[in-house]
Amino acid sequence: MSWREEALEVRKPTHPINKLMLGRWSPRSMSGEPISDEELFSLFEAARWAPSSYNGQPWRILYAKRDTPEWPLIYNLMVPFNQEWTKNAAVLLVMISRNTFEHNNKPAHTHSYDTGAAWMSIALEGATRGLVVHGMEGFDYDKARTTLNVPADYTVEAMAAIGKHAPKEKLPPEMQAKEVPSTRKALNEIVFNGKYK
Amino acid sequence: MSWREEALEVRKPTHPINKLMLGRWSPRSMSGEPISDEELFSLFEAARWAPSSYNGQPWRILYAKRDTPEWPLIYNLMVPFNQEWTKNAAVLLVMISRNTFEHNNKPAHTHSYDTGAAWMSIALEGATRGLVVHGMEGFDYDKARTTLNVPADYTVEAMAAIGKHAPKEKLPPEMQAKEVPSTRKALNEIVFNGKYK
Repeated sequence: MSWREEALEVRKPTHPINKLMLGRWSPRSMSGEPISDEELFSLFEAARWAPSSYNGQPWRILYAKRDTPEWPLIYNLMVPFNQEWTKNAAVLLVMISRNTFEHNNKPAHTHSYDTGAAWMSIALEGATRGLVVHGMEGFDYDKARTTLNVPADYTVEAMAAIGKHAPKEKLPPEMQAKEVPSTRKALNEIVFNGKYK
Repeated sequence: MSWREEALEVRKPTHPINKLMLGRWSPRSMSGEPISDEELFSLFEAARWAPSSYNGQPWRILYAKRDTPEWPLIYNLMVPFNQEWTKNAAVLLVMISRNTFEHNNKPAHTHSYDTGAAWMSIALEGATRGLVVHGMEGFDYDKARTTLNVPADYTVEAMAAIGKHAPKEKLPPEMQAKEVPSTRKALNEIVFNGKYK
């Protein structure tokens, strides 16, 4: 059973959904192999077509491929736990977003939310291709801003690691136990008819 | 040609991506027909499986179906422009997010971003099913908080309208011209190798 099928086996949705969303999960074990620019740019292309308020497209993607001069700029931002497993990633991303609309410079209320939609597109394009795409917030946000020249009117949102999957045995023993598709709250904990209760 | 195929015809990706993402767009013309709870809850189920920091699942969905007592609570929040076309929607949503982690009550940096990922899952599950799913920020955020009892430690993120598609001729004339799949910035405007430039 592949790692993708594992999620479909373990997760029990209460209502049927597209297997692309149900089968997407966030392993940590990656092989260390590179991924081609063709594949990588298809993930970015997916982000490009996400919806946003006034089609403002507030998302920006800063990336680094392993074994390039850009890699340490992003790799060194992470906490040691994330450095341990992402050393076998092929690509690291930092997602940032513009806080204001370009057409009038007014605050864009949904800039982070819209950038989350673009991030989800990357995750799902990766899932379509059988790649590991794992989001992270375990990194130094202030250092990211200075190291990566993030302008003052942009927000540093999150990071992600992308790579080719490997068996969980490639991870340090303490991480192997976490290498399972996660579960979720019950639907009635997140959905309310009318007012929040 | 269906409205979904129209997007695939008009949009020219520079790299191949899953047609689910490329074909998703945000029409306004809806038929006024209801959608079943089975379909609606599959959209919510898709949101449920989105990724989030520490699997915190900060998203909450407040919804109203047309011709129910909850409908005016949400419908009346919108600006007149959005009221005009969403009167033919089947369901309105308000997406909110919890600002802190439940396990330690510390600020969750990615609560809006993660909720955007859940929102994208709703949009894509809707696209899978050929439903219109159209996001909005044209509504009164403060009124949403009070009317819908949104707690102080939650953020009101955005709204969405869901319904069955109708030909654009059902829209008022001034909206018909906007009823086309939108384009996007070039990839080199949103993707940077290493530092932001």
